[in-house]
Amino acid sequence: MDNRDEIILRPIGYVKNSSTVIPRHWSVSDIEGELVIDPEYKDGLKDISAGNLICVIFNFHKSPAFTKEKLIQNPGHRDGILGVFSLCSPYRPNPIGFSVLKVLDRSENILKVKGLDMMDNTPILDIKPYVAYKEPEQ
Amino acid sequence: MDNRDEIILRPIGYVKNSSTVIPRHWSVSDIEGELVIDPEYKDGLKDISAGNLICVIFNFHKSPAFTKEKLIQNPGHRDGILGVFSLCSPYRPNPIGFSVLKVLDRSENILKVKGLDMMDNTPILDIKPYVAYKEPEQ
Repeated sequence: MDNRDEIILRPIGYVKNSSTVIPRHWSVSDIEGELVIDPEYKDGLKDISAGNLICVIFNFHKSPAFTKEKLIQNPGHRDGILGVFSLCSPYRPNPIGFSVLKVLDRSENILKVKGLDMMDNTPILDIKPYVAYKEPEQ
Repeated sequence: MDNRDEIILRPIGYVKNSSTVIPRHWSVSDIEGELVIDPEYKDGLKDISAGNLICVIFNFHKSPAFTKEKLIQNPGHRDGILGVFSLCSPYRPNPIGFSVLKVLDRSENILKVKGLDMMDNTPILDIKPYVAYKEPEQ
């Protein structure tokens, strides 16, 4: 394929968030909820257990289409305006989100997690193990 | 939209990796290269500078279509076999990759980076600031 071709993805599950609180960034969120993964992918979850940190890649499914004006945004909680690629804003050229969550429990195809910053019903695209950055040894 | 609908993404740029070494995971890679972002998104890069850590979300554009047999894989470098969602393998239900890279330089729409584990020509989907996980205060 060409490196400019469209990429078509299909959700592997969705977020269940029954909190009525407006979600804050995962790094400061203590909201608990569930990641409901399609049963067909259940075997792929077998090594995830309570205490694990996972990276969740998801779709900002409620974001309006991106426009040029959003290349620079005022995040509100910081001074000044910033380029979109220095922000976690849901308004981005590709509406993809990324959160690090703590696993509280797993039961079959459902992960109970803490740190949610996604809205109820958010489509999940992928789950990966969390790897912290370390400065390379000289 | 429904939370099972297909999601269509369009690359914002591509990776330029002229190394002939087979890329290892970003956490152990010291390969340098470039992220060439489409000029239309240049303004969104304005706050990225040398020394920054960035998260790059990209497409595993050379991965074959996913099949059920790949739900559990042998990563080779660890004991035993693991569920795909506990691995960074390029064979995943959605062929999305994630790397943390160090920015060495920015010039217009091009980021010079270190830590590359993507092949030459890999389509880039998004760039976000790196945020390390911290245990919440009790």
